[in-house]
Amino acid sequence: MIEQPRTAVVIGTGLIGASLALALTAAGHGVHLQDRTLSHARVAAGLGAGTLDPPDPGAVDLVVVAVPPGAIAAVVLQSLQTYPRATVTDVGSVKAGVLDALWNRDVDLSRYVGSHPMAGSQHSGPVTAHADLFDGRTWVVAPHRRSRPESVAQVLELVRACRAREVVMDVDEHDAAVARVSHLPHLISVLMAGHLTAVPHADLLLAGQGLRDVTRIAGSDPDLWQQILSANATAVLSELKTVSAELAELIRSLESGASTGQLAERLARGVAGTRRIPGKHGAAPATYAQVVVEIPDTPGALGRLFAEVGAAGVNVEDIAIEHDQAREIGYLALAVEPGRADDLVAAMLAGGWSVGS
Amino acid sequence: MIEQPRTAVVIGTGLIGASLALALTAAGHGVHLQDRTLSHARVAAGLGAGTLDPPDPGAVDLVVVAVPPGAIAAVVLQSLQTYPRATVTDVGSVKAGVLDALWNRDVDLSRYVGSHPMAGSQHSGPVTAHADLFDGRTWVVAPHRRSRPESVAQVLELVRACRAREVVMDVDEHDAAVARVSHLPHLISVLMAGHLTAVPHADLLLAGQGLRDVTRIAGSDPDLWQQILSANATAVLSELKTVSAELAELIRSLESGASTGQLAERLARGVAGTRRIPGKHGAAPATYAQVVVEIPDTPGALGRLFAEVGAAGVNVEDIAIEHDQAREIGYLALAVEPGRADDLVAAMLAGGWSVGS
Repeated sequence: MIEQPRTAVVIGTGLIGASLALALTAAGHGVHLQDRTLSHARVAAGLGAGTLDPPDPGAVDLVVVAVPPGAIAAVVLQSLQTYPRATVTDVGSVKAGVLDALWNRDVDLSRYVGSHPMAGSQHSGPVTAHADLFDGRTWVVAPHRRSRPESVAQVLELVRACRAREVVMDVDEHDAAVARVSHLPHLISVLMAGHLTAVPHADLLLAGQGLRDVTRIAGSDPDLWQQILSANATAVLSELKTVSAELAELIRSLESGASTGQLAERLARGVAGTRRIPGKHGAAPATYAQVVVEIPDTPGALGRLFAEVGAAGVNVEDIAIEHDQAREIGYLALAVEPGRADDLVAAMLAGGWSVGS
Repeated sequence: MIEQPRTAVVIGTGLIGASLALALTAAGHGVHLQDRTLSHARVAAGLGAGTLDPPDPGAVDLVVVAVPPGAIAAVVLQSLQTYPRATVTDVGSVKAGVLDALWNRDVDLSRYVGSHPMAGSQHSGPVTAHADLFDGRTWVVAPHRRSRPESVAQVLELVRACRAREVVMDVDEHDAAVARVSHLPHLISVLMAGHLTAVPHADLLLAGQGLRDVTRIAGSDPDLWQQILSANATAVLSELKTVSAELAELIRSLESGASTGQLAERLARGVAGTRRIPGKHGAAPATYAQVVVEIPDTPGALGRLFAEVGAAGVNVEDIAIEHDQAREIGYLALAVEPGRADDLVAAMLAGGWSVGS
């Protein structure tokens, strides 16, 4: 039988740390909060995530390290030393680097088990923290060969306390997976955005929504990403080199001319790739019907529109605003179940909205 | 003094063709509509864009070719032959290819002047057409060295009738610009999406919004894009080769290790690139405050929410829904003028919504 942790320390009270602290507290555990930014810990404590009082080191069963990537290894090491009985886990997005940094240190690594919750939103800070952030989400637990079974079990208990879906993965497999679906796309976006620094300003006036989408994540915090990418450089490099070869093929397909069908094949492969990405709620990609409504860019327009959508009883699955670059007009694309599109169009037309499809 | 066209033929009545036909009709010109898909022409005529009656060929002053890219050259050629006095323009997104295809044909090329309106939405078909689609938008007019001045003037008259902002550009300059801000980003997205076809399904379950954004446009109609890319292959190849070299540098920066600062420099360059893209309405990029609200994924939730946003009198500049992959919960990010964020947060909290920032 697995003994549940009774006393936990959560180090780092951003969105992830504060949310899991809330879940641990809700599950009946005593949670001690620590953060280099005291105001974050105070907000988290104010939300009911735990106490700011220091714990008795010998009584701590579990330490969760939820600090920025570059600080994880040092904080895990310190935690293993400070809390002599505790299982220590982290929630960083790369796993092998932390392990490498700790491997030859004089510390009891059997009590360390890395993990990585696939948690919701990019919005950081404890303000939006909530106990069910991880509810039904994938949470990778990545033991290493020295991890003791009791510590693995304790981290799995944490995952269950957060009502997440546990996935046990090898450290290297995990890092390869996030290299493919997160770190590579980030660098591809950076590559495209960086290229724009050499594009004449006059050309950029011809830019549309596609360019904005492709480059959006390149605008993310470069310090955070340097930490993440440095920690997973080997796996990311392997993906980048494959993409480099694929880019060479793409260049050849364009050089060979349209008639050979090689370019068509590449474009079709791109479409196929987008269809492999699972849809929302982890389900298979859904094909929604799209209803496009013209909205004036004035206060209250969206309010009136959504009030009428709501009155029609149609559930909007996704929304996007496409702005007209010159006029004070936006187009709102509403994705709805195909069977409900006609109802929505009828409701919009009845409300005097200009509707397309 | 420039004589205005009195009789125009618009060939192709999708969103662009039908909208400019509406603008020409509104400006007092007689407009004849043609479309291979008769239902499109009928919808456009029903909107008041013109007549389906065939014109007297000798009386036609202006022909606007608004057909798919691969068909443009043939339709322009045929139009020059059919309408002996008419100036002929097209609205395709690539200009040099059409000209090359016509250059050595036995036809009066002095009456052809290419153009390219930077028109609104991706949503095709005449249903959403409206006379002011081009109002204040950039419309590139790209004369060639044989274009007669009267024909250039007539195309500029068209641009003015549509109340667009005329930009006269060299054919090759134009094609280089769209290669950089539209065709290259499309292929970068295709490259990333195509790479996903070889990624294990289990890895894709760890995908987030970033991957979806980068690959979104790769899901666009591959036939249309093959036509566009084939028509602009030279300019696109030049950009792709530069990106290929930049990718090699990115690989080297990652190989050289985080400490050298090369990776940081690449990431910073990406951030700088995103900031060069003009914001909506052609203005400088605006920094909006973001308010994040948790929304249940049920009918009426968005309606209630936006009704309260509307009641607060706050203009929402942009919206995005981020779906929780596992739970029936979405986060709505509302971008508002920084000075209005507090009002919006207060209104949301008063309405019982869960708000972050």
